[in-house]
Amino acid sequence: MKYDIKDIKLAAKGALRIEWARQDMPVLRLIEKRFAKEKPLKGMRLAACLHVTTETANLVRALKAGGAQVYLCASNPLSTQDDVAAALVKNLKVPVFAIKGEDNKTYYKHIKATLAPEPNITMDDGADLVSVIHKEKKFFPLGGTEETTTGVIRLRAMQKKGVLKYPIIAVNDAETKHLFDNRYGTGQSTLDGLIRATNRLIAGLNVVICGYGWCGKGVSMRAAGLGAKVIVVEVDPLRALEANMDGYQVMTISNAAKIGDIFITLTGDIDVIRKEHFQVMKEGAIVANSGHFNVEIDISALEKLSRKKKRIREFVDEYTLRDGRKIYLLGEGRLINLAAAEGHPAQVMDMSFANQALSAEYIAKRYKGLKHEVYSVPEAIDKNIAGLKLKSMGIKIDTLTKEQKKYLGSWELGT
Amino acid sequence: MKYDIKDIKLAAKGALRIEWARQDMPVLRLIEKRFAKEKPLKGMRLAACLHVTTETANLVRALKAGGAQVYLCASNPLSTQDDVAAALVKNLKVPVFAIKGEDNKTYYKHIKATLAPEPNITMDDGADLVSVIHKEKKFFPLGGTEETTTGVIRLRAMQKKGVLKYPIIAVNDAETKHLFDNRYGTGQSTLDGLIRATNRLIAGLNVVICGYGWCGKGVSMRAAGLGAKVIVVEVDPLRALEANMDGYQVMTISNAAKIGDIFITLTGDIDVIRKEHFQVMKEGAIVANSGHFNVEIDISALEKLSRKKKRIREFVDEYTLRDGRKIYLLGEGRLINLAAAEGHPAQVMDMSFANQALSAEYIAKRYKGLKHEVYSVPEAIDKNIAGLKLKSMGIKIDTLTKEQKKYLGSWELGT
Amino acid sequence: MKYDIKDIKLAAKGALRIEWARQDMPVLRLIEKRFAKEKPLKGMRLAACLHVTTETANLVRALKAGGAQVYLCASNPLSTQDDVAAALVKNLKVPVFAIKGEDNKTYYKHIKATLAPEPNITMDDGADLVSVIHKEKKFFPLGGTEETTTGVIRLRAMQKKGVLKYPIIAVNDAETKHLFDNRYGTGQSTLDGLIRATNRLIAGLNVVICGYGWCGKGVSMRAAGLGAKVIVVEVDPLRALEANMDGYQVMTISNAAKIGDIFITLTGDIDVIRKEHFQVMKEGAIVANSGHFNVEIDISALEKLSRKKKRIREFVDEYTLRDGRKIYLLGEGRLINLAAAEGHPAQVMDMSFANQALSAEYIAKRYKGLKHEVYSVPEAIDKNIAGLKLKSMGIKIDTLTKEQKKYLGSWELGT
Amino acid sequence: MKYDIKDIKLAAKGALRIEWARQDMPVLRLIEKRFAKEKPLKGMRLAACLHVTTETANLVRALKAGGAQVYLCASNPLSTQDDVAAALVKNLKVPVFAIKGEDNKTYYKHIKATLAPEPNITMDDGADLVSVIHKEKKFFPLGGTEETTTGVIRLRAMQKKGVLKYPIIAVNDAETKHLFDNRYGTGQSTLDGLIRATNRLIAGLNVVICGYGWCGKGVSMRAAGLGAKVIVVEVDPLRALEANMDGYQVMTISNAAKIGDIFITLTGDIDVIRKEHFQVMKEGAIVANSGHFNVEIDISALEKLSRKKKRIREFVDEYTLRDGRKIYLLGEGRLINLAAAEGHPAQVMDMSFANQALSAEYIAKRYKGLKHEVYSVPEAIDKNIAGLKLKSMGIKIDTLTKEQKKYLGSWELGT
Repeated sequence: MKYDIKDIKLAAKGALRIEWARQDMPVLRLIEKRFAKEKPLKGMRLAACLHVTTETANLVRALKAGGAQVYLCASNPLSTQDDVAAALVKNLKVPVFAIKGEDNKTYYKHIKATLAPEPNITMDDGADLVSVIHKEKKFFPLGGTEETTTGVIRLRAMQKKGVLKYPIIAVNDAETKHLFDNRYGTGQSTLDGLIRATNRLIAGLNVVICGYGWCGKGVSMRAAGLGAKVIVVEVDPLRALEANMDGYQVMTISNAAKIGDIFITLTGDIDVIRKEHFQVMKEGAIVANSGHFNVEIDISALEKLSRKKKRIREFVDEYTLRDGRKIYLLGEGRLINLAAAEGHPAQVMDMSFANQALSAEYIAKRYKGLKHEVYSVPEAIDKNIAGLKLKSMGIKIDTLTKEQKKYLGSWELGT
Repeated sequence: MKYDIKDIKLAAKGALRIEWARQDMPVLRLIEKRFAKEKPLKGMRLAACLHVTTETANLVRALKAGGAQVYLCASNPLSTQDDVAAALVKNLKVPVFAIKGEDNKTYYKHIKATLAPEPNITMDDGADLVSVIHKEKKFFPLGGTEETTTGVIRLRAMQKKGVLKYPIIAVNDAETKHLFDNRYGTGQSTLDGLIRATNRLIAGLNVVICGYGWCGKGVSMRAAGLGAKVIVVEVDPLRALEANMDGYQVMTISNAAKIGDIFITLTGDIDVIRKEHFQVMKEGAIVANSGHFNVEIDISALEKLSRKKKRIREFVDEYTLRDGRKIYLLGEGRLINLAAAEGHPAQVMDMSFANQALSAEYIAKRYKGLKHEVYSVPEAIDKNIAGLKLKSMGIKIDTLTKEQKKYLGSWELGT
Repeated sequence: MKYDIKDIKLAAKGALRIEWARQDMPVLRLIEKRFAKEKPLKGMRLAACLHVTTETANLVRALKAGGAQVYLCASNPLSTQDDVAAALVKNLKVPVFAIKGEDNKTYYKHIKATLAPEPNITMDDGADLVSVIHKEKKFFPLGGTEETTTGVIRLRAMQKKGVLKYPIIAVNDAETKHLFDNRYGTGQSTLDGLIRATNRLIAGLNVVICGYGWCGKGVSMRAAGLGAKVIVVEVDPLRALEANMDGYQVMTISNAAKIGDIFITLTGDIDVIRKEHFQVMKEGAIVANSGHFNVEIDISALEKLSRKKKRIREFVDEYTLRDGRKIYLLGEGRLINLAAAEGHPAQVMDMSFANQALSAEYIAKRYKGLKHEVYSVPEAIDKNIAGLKLKSMGIKIDTLTKEQKKYLGSWELGT
Repeated sequence: MKYDIKDIKLAAKGALRIEWARQDMPVLRLIEKRFAKEKPLKGMRLAACLHVTTETANLVRALKAGGAQVYLCASNPLSTQDDVAAALVKNLKVPVFAIKGEDNKTYYKHIKATLAPEPNITMDDGADLVSVIHKEKKFFPLGGTEETTTGVIRLRAMQKKGVLKYPIIAVNDAETKHLFDNRYGTGQSTLDGLIRATNRLIAGLNVVICGYGWCGKGVSMRAAGLGAKVIVVEVDPLRALEANMDGYQVMTISNAAKIGDIFITLTGDIDVIRKEHFQVMKEGAIVANSGHFNVEIDISALEKLSRKKKRIREFVDEYTLRDGRKIYLLGEGRLINLAAAEGHPAQVMDMSFANQALSAEYIAKRYKGLKHEVYSVPEAIDKNIAGLKLKSMGIKIDTLTKEQKKYLGSWELGT
């Protein structure tokens, strides 16, 4: 079996951490159990390009239980947990191609190694597999899934241009995914990454959040929950209004740049923080990204403005500008929650990955009926996952009475 | 001119209050200005069944400026502000049929009076005009609009059954409506109504919120913001999960009934709180409704359980149960924010009613192309309103750079 | 019996409202019960200068049950609830001298009427009785109590200058008073008054809070809980730091004046908002006071800057400045929670007034041992009230085990 | 120079991290600058028993700048940052006796090594130096300082029993200490430690906080800010009431034990969570301590109930009880913010340690006038620190006008 990881000897530590995550993934455990019996993925070669974390390991385990042959590479050069990679190789016999901190070249080499077996199903987190497959045009899978907002935006652009060559299920569209993972997951883990990287007290600081989508909402909520004075930057008037009504200051990035103590980007777009913003930042400003790609901060502009760069702390690069001001870039502008912390907690990934597993099953069973389009996760899957999750938490809810159901379907009952 | 109101002498007070609201409705003011010039509603007879409040008066003013002949009745027997009705009649010469506290018979008589001129356009808040028109089948307008979630549910049920006879624009679907009015508007005004009715301290109480839709989210947020221990009751697993993740206790209404100090229903369904729940409530429990219709609390069950009923305070009925416990029902189970307070603040109604005005214009111009279906507000209208609102608040936001736009439309730029 | 009130015919309505408040005052009810048996205030003439509200009526009832002869006047010209005054006169035979909206002259006439019987005990809310007694020097009581921060500051100033002529118990110092009444009571009721007066949506507005003492903390907390962007103005560096760490913007009043939508003063000092601040306020700014006296806003400066004044809504005066800007003053600059709403909810007044009742008892029993000083409420009274309150809410807490008590008293047990 | 640390080669890494902390300690930097000029500690031998962190290193640096000879040991066996210890030894030539994870015997050996030079001043964090000095009775210093609530309780017990043999300044009493460090510092860092140790999603969990003092308030605030359903356990009725009014559920530990997902103790007392509580906990419950000593959780009871113990993750011990349930103990019951995270952020320690440095100076200058008592930090020091801190944050506040000062001191100005 081919694989490329940091150190196979880390397997024991990884295995324990995977077990720890497993305890907080009750929905995925139930799916794994059924998969083991029904083998719905039998005969499928599945290439997954995901953050190599303890939660992903549990997804891989479920997919294997379902009969799939799984190949795994990283969806981000900094997010791999090397001990998890080792445990997957050693204990689960999964070919993993991922090393924390790999350079760009190795990153793409690993993607290609994962695609070498010409998989039937791709599982993406940022659309890198889809992207490479469509550039190389060597083969096309039966179907694929996509985890992120960023990836789904890319895929819809492809569909619109008519270049998408196989069906994709947008796992991100599931409510049990984006309402939870993007909001509560990204919210907590971004602050977690920020604090681990810096050990700064958040209370009383001006924290500038660029982007008020589900992720930005989550991060704003948690930053405020830690006592920050949150400032939101947006381009969409509806979201900007919403941020204002939620009690946050809303302003342009040019104005925010002058007063922010910490900046976090989560927009899915490029160069959100760029030269003219670095030029007006306060001494000691901290800049981080929690969007999918490391393009949101224009790092090359920062490099050009600086006369000195020093790694003052793990994940913290001190840039000394020519005018003497110091600006701190975290995690090289990569997803701070994965670079400096451990990514989303298992409890939210449980639902996101339940969607992944069930979407893979859906492709395996229904690929013949699917067009080369981006599909949403079927609502039944979504509700089912929510119900299982509640149950696992011991929370009981009501069901409609017969009369209540009837009333909702009626229009004649009057005032 | 025919009309039926409480007392025309209240006009002066009403006029001042309408002016006060007007200052917080900048978007509607801009629309009124354009309408006055363009007269897009010329020749239209428009029947509006809305809460007769200062904000509605400003909408009526804009519609008249646009050339419409407007007839107005109340969408709820308790929500009419009699001084506003008087001012509309006296100063704006609008035929108004609405008296605060009118009985059910008068309520329907007023609806019919409003429909007598066989209007071309209906404007509903709870689908009562549509409902009566479809029962009587005397005429059908060119189109209509609907303000509420409850109404839209009814109308979609009608469309599904194939009985809807004219096109309706679901104003409630606009993001500038439901994200703001339902959440921030209902949130604040429900607590406002509750506090005016009771003068209770909210901090430290168990406040049970039935329904975690946009309205329920808003009320939960504000109750928590006042220090309540919020308990959410839901039937939808996704929303129940969301409520739990938002830090609220989630349980069945049967369990909540035992510990709640205050209950608020916002579900759009009937009998949410019923006999078996009253039977286990604590001494002194307070029960209120903020859903559209007064059907959410089973008041007749409460009556039957009681041996005495006393109005202890305006809007507060004390029911003494046969076992001696006292339960307090607010505002006779009608929308508490309108019964005991003044409904939504002008600032949110500004956006909701901007959607109403622009949707009426849309019908007047495009009715020929519309089917007998429920339509969403066109996105362009929605974004336009959001932009105007931000501008009126002096908030500036960014626009995408050329490169950023390009990036969002691309899929080849890589990691 | 002499008295001076608005209208005795309001007694029935007042009686019901007093009963309503009574239900939320379980601690005071228990005290009344004991007082009725023990008559600890027998022979005492007690002059009370308090806000004449439903809660005060329940305090008066307890004091009478304890054997005191009680005389009551208002501690603020705008805060009297005329129906309560009527019920006290008619049903409880208490001589009340208070009419809502009385002018300054009547206000002092009423104070003097209350002092005419030369009371043994005074009960103050803002030190007006003490103040008049010390000016007139006709007699001095055995002791008195004081409810407010503002009053205690005045009394300590008197003690410091050696002019205080009888002992005062600072009820405000009790933790069951200032931690609850000032924070949760003033917090909720100030926002309540503000919303009743204006019906403005608080979410998204810049709300400027002048003063970050217990009252200011409470109002900030509630304004933020309603979605405001809170700005705190302070003169004390410790409190300013605390406000910043709590996530609020902190700035000078000069800077806040330019961006505030709503201003609330709670400082206990004069001219917090004055000419130079009105001059830079935004069109439509709203100014209110929630501090004890109507001196915090320099109203005469506002009058001088204005060319027109109009009462646009009950409790809202529109000042049109010479440059055309409009500024709105609420409740004539008097305590907005009493002017436009109903003051503190019964639940917090239950504890404040339990302290009053027990402090009056303390004076009656111990006045011989007291010097002409300001005393704190004895800790035993404070803890006792807290325990009773918890019990009334059905909340059980732990007690220390024997080992835990021993450990806390030891210093040798080691790491 | 004698010292006992883990590895001198860690000095370079430690030095960078000390520099990083230094940037967030502006007040201490100003003090160091003055100390370097004035040398107020010249001739003093100062033994410090503190958490050996980057912030402590900056305090030590200031003390040395002031002329003191400083000896340092750890105030907790798990809290030492070995790289910081190395940097202090190598670069600042400070004799440090501290190794992360040292056993109890080594811990006390290190304390004694620090006391060997018979210091004039002791600086304690938990009163261990004072305790050993009073047991050994070999010598008594001129004075000492104490950082923690726990330590101050012990010292006041000693004073009360008349056994305290030298004066102590209770740094914890300073408002710039306990209002900030205990609340915002412990608040954030406890959650930080908890998340680093477990990577659990906090949102939606029942988090039980034992103790609602300043530390417990801070942790409750932050847990709620992360979406937890907070449950507070208290023995003091006043604090219990306050917790309830703050919107938290309040119950006994026996009831909380049944429903908690995570437990955190911050009481300063022993055996808060004990046998009968472990017996009813849910499968998977997580138990942590953030109080000063590792006595708050009865670990030996947990050991006795268990049939298996496994370190499943760094800082997480999995106890498998005889009935099969698993309970997780974090950081061996020691201060979780120091065991699993990095302790308080520099920004709060800046103020706490500014108090330490200025209190040491105060002792050096004034020890002759001090009795064998526990003293509060002089108010002037406290306000001075608050002012410097605000200034360093670029926050300007108002000062009282002449008229305002006069008004506050008066009592005759009337209503």
